[in-house]
Amino acid sequence: MTPNHPIGKDLLSAADLSAPDLIDVMARSRRLAVTDGQSGAASNSRKIVANLFFQRSTRTKLGFEVAALRLGHRSIDAYDPERNRVGSSNGDSFPDHIRTIAQLADLLVIRHSEELKCHEVARLAPVPVINGGNGSDEHPTQALIDLFCMLEMKGSMDKLSLAISCDSRARYAYSLLLLLKHMPPRRLTFCVDPETQFSEKTQIALDHLADLGTQVGIVHDIEECLDHDVLNIQTQDLTSKVKSTLENGDLPSYAEKEPFVLTADKILKARSDAIILNPLPRQGELDSSCDTLPNARYFEQVKLSTYVRMAVLERMLAGIPWTGTGALARA
Amino acid sequence: MTPNHPIGKDLLSAADLSAPDLIDVMARSRRLAVTDGQSGAASNSRKIVANLFFQRSTRTKLGFEVAALRLGHRSIDAYDPERNRVGSSNGDSFPDHIRTIAQLADLLVIRHSEELKCHEVARLAPVPVINGGNGSDEHPTQALIDLFCMLEMKGSMDKLSLAISCDSRARYAYSLLLLLKHMPPRRLTFCVDPETQFSEKTQIALDHLADLGTQVGIVHDIEECLDHDVLNIQTQDLTSKVKSTLENGDLPSYAEKEPFVLTADKILKARSDAIILNPLPRQGELDSSCDTLPNARYFEQVKLSTYVRMAVLERMLAGIPWTGTGALARA
Amino acid sequence: MTPNHPIGKDLLSAADLSAPDLIDVMARSRRLAVTDGQSGAASNSRKIVANLFFQRSTRTKLGFEVAALRLGHRSIDAYDPERNRVGSSNGDSFPDHIRTIAQLADLLVIRHSEELKCHEVARLAPVPVINGGNGSDEHPTQALIDLFCMLEMKGSMDKLSLAISCDSRARYAYSLLLLLKHMPPRRLTFCVDPETQFSEKTQIALDHLADLGTQVGIVHDIEECLDHDVLNIQTQDLTSKVKSTLENGDLPSYAEKEPFVLTADKILKARSDAIILNPLPRQGELDSSCDTLPNARYFEQVKLSTYVRMAVLERMLAGIPWTGTGALARA
Repeated sequence: MTPNHPIGKDLLSAADLSAPDLIDVMARSRRLAVTDGQSGAASNSRKIVANLFFQRSTRTKLGFEVAALRLGHRSIDAYDPERNRVGSSNGDSFPDHIRTIAQLADLLVIRHSEELKCHEVARLAPVPVINGGNGSDEHPTQALIDLFCMLEMKGSMDKLSLAISCDSRARYAYSLLLLLKHMPPRRLTFCVDPETQFSEKTQIALDHLADLGTQVGIVHDIEECLDHDVLNIQTQDLTSKVKSTLENGDLPSYAEKEPFVLTADKILKARSDAIILNPLPRQGELDSSCDTLPNARYFEQVKLSTYVRMAVLERMLAGIPWTGTGALARA
Repeated sequence: MTPNHPIGKDLLSAADLSAPDLIDVMARSRRLAVTDGQSGAASNSRKIVANLFFQRSTRTKLGFEVAALRLGHRSIDAYDPERNRVGSSNGDSFPDHIRTIAQLADLLVIRHSEELKCHEVARLAPVPVINGGNGSDEHPTQALIDLFCMLEMKGSMDKLSLAISCDSRARYAYSLLLLLKHMPPRRLTFCVDPETQFSEKTQIALDHLADLGTQVGIVHDIEECLDHDVLNIQTQDLTSKVKSTLENGDLPSYAEKEPFVLTADKILKARSDAIILNPLPRQGELDSSCDTLPNARYFEQVKLSTYVRMAVLERMLAGIPWTGTGALARA
Repeated sequence: MTPNHPIGKDLLSAADLSAPDLIDVMARSRRLAVTDGQSGAASNSRKIVANLFFQRSTRTKLGFEVAALRLGHRSIDAYDPERNRVGSSNGDSFPDHIRTIAQLADLLVIRHSEELKCHEVARLAPVPVINGGNGSDEHPTQALIDLFCMLEMKGSMDKLSLAISCDSRARYAYSLLLLLKHMPPRRLTFCVDPETQFSEKTQIALDHLADLGTQVGIVHDIEECLDHDVLNIQTQDLTSKVKSTLENGDLPSYAEKEPFVLTADKILKARSDAIILNPLPRQGELDSSCDTLPNARYFEQVKLSTYVRMAVLERMLAGIPWTGTGALARA
């Protein structure tokens, strides 16, 4: 049974953003970046942002905590299975835990290995819910961060050539493709393993971009990406990572295949001035020799992420609904 | 050795509240509820509320954290045996840990499986201490929450019929009986297993209510409670729960006996408009089929709990003493 | 590669403070103590203080959290190996974790068993870094706290006789010796095991104090310290503690040797009015019989510690550099 919730209260997919929604988030992020966050919401309307991280996280979890705090709001860690009663045999069920937290807090951020859990949470909670990564499905706020970085560093998308090197199942990449529909780049190159089979949804998203005029290409070597304006890089082998993260355990060491490893030598040899972004953590695809080159912008990306998360929180805590096709389809 | 502490600084038992204290807490809660918490203490007198939870907790721990934050104060988690030094062989003893935290914070909230620990903490700490549940003894703030819910949902106690279905050793129920002395209901029905032996203190509290004019009754089937205005329900078998919580471990699955299980069918069959409250988590006594009926008010109860915890913190951080017989007896 | 960081941004050693720096910190602490912390920085410039505690801590970790909160700032726990991705095989490396946190927060506090880690963090982070204890090397903020306590309780250092009873390798004691160069006491007595070999750096610090006119002495029994104005006491056997803390594990029980155990009897027999300080936790060197004597000031020391940590944070978050020889040597 779903309570009668406001339409568009949740950010579960990048498809929840319409073009005006996306422009609004980018404009808010810009304003916050210019003032280093000082222009955020006033502190006399204190709100509580509850983090529900069922998987490990550094940037997303601490990032939303920091974004809430910099806005003058507060953050609580609402999933701590060692200290809370959720999940213990005489404790709360998952739905009861969510219903409880939704009464204590004003907004929930959830990361869960199961794709559908964030949707369940959104149905259970009368308050806004943000998907902080659901299995291998989507990671809409990471995509917003990547897009904001490109806009901040390059000015606009329409003349831009963008290369994405990653496992084609990467959730942030799929979310980014959905956002790019509203701001299509001039050129988009996907760098993947030759054996890659794109998923149907990814293929549809790429075809849609091609229809919008983007020059879409596929390559199999990172060196073919270095003439682009931006290279967004992540590991090619996400399967083992997702599996490991699902189990919250450690992973046997994994060697990125050489054609997908970016090194300072490759950048220097190509005389590339491509901006390098990476959602982090890195797993062998991005050699530390790159770190001191001017191309390396992935820690600046972390800096900018705070403004984007602040923008998303500011908008959602003000009760402004998302109006994209995804949000409307759930209504 | 007990330092020379102000009389009435601590809330350890429901008996610490006099009738005027109780009226004050209810009035503060009301004011906070009406303004959705915005009328709390000003943020320029930031205080630190330290949580010391030696047992698992969701609502009480996060609830006091949220209440402090919504008042503009701050909360710290002051018992983390994996990260703090308390309890390790080269770390702080329990008393030294409490003495230390009491110098850093302005108020302590403690939950401990041993009944006497909160009293020890109150003696060690010069700052106010709240009992967030001490073994199977008391849980005064939960009782305040239950009473506030009844007042908010039904207006007053004097014409009210209240049924309580739970293990007769339930700490929140005993605390509630103590509070009801100041606001006796018209009728009070205790629904318990036929083999139940009331403890002496519970029997005394019930007799006291009867002396005050309350029509006190005992039943052994939840269906006999459904003609009441309010049904406050919890599991009948607390012993195994307390044992499990003591060991901070999991529990073999337990089936509530059928006469004590509330279902939508029973409510509908009785055409009951009883309000259903539950301190949560539930353990089989409250079927999820009830959740969508208008009778179900247990998640609204969580919402209201924040205002009550804010009221208690507001009063205690302002240094207003408790003047009930319990508080005076410790002086 | 070290980025181009501002000179003097970090507090890694007591040698980072010049005499004017030390006077400034003591003056700020004084002002904060007088107003019970209410005169701290305005809340409309919210900053984020990130705690990175790779070792157990109660006072330093919670103390910096409380100090940040009382200043109107915020604190995050940025090292949680069970919840964050740092250290897992598909997570962040140590340097990437630090670089990430340094983009989210405005100041880092680190405790690590390896002496050099805080220096690595200071090089990686563009924001200020505080050493909250690095192995058996230094603990500069604890030394500032001890010095502030002596000034608050005794007025000034120049006429003061100070006894320090501890393992000669104690990090807080070495940091204190470095600070005392700027405020040399009249008399300094080190109470140590007869077999103690002072480290070269400790010997140099003691010689330097002697050159400045301090009457430096060595004794082997705590009773010879009781005619001093101040006795700063800690366990004599730090080796096993450091080892245990390194392993984050428990310790076989350890008995302090009798000549180094302070008891109420010894204090009363000596008719001593020495002030007793202890950085805590205690491990047998300080009997609880002392706790009720007026000499015992170690919990008041915890109270005063908040003002000192607030003073340090206030200064560093305002961007005021340290100008001592240590800070300049790293430039």
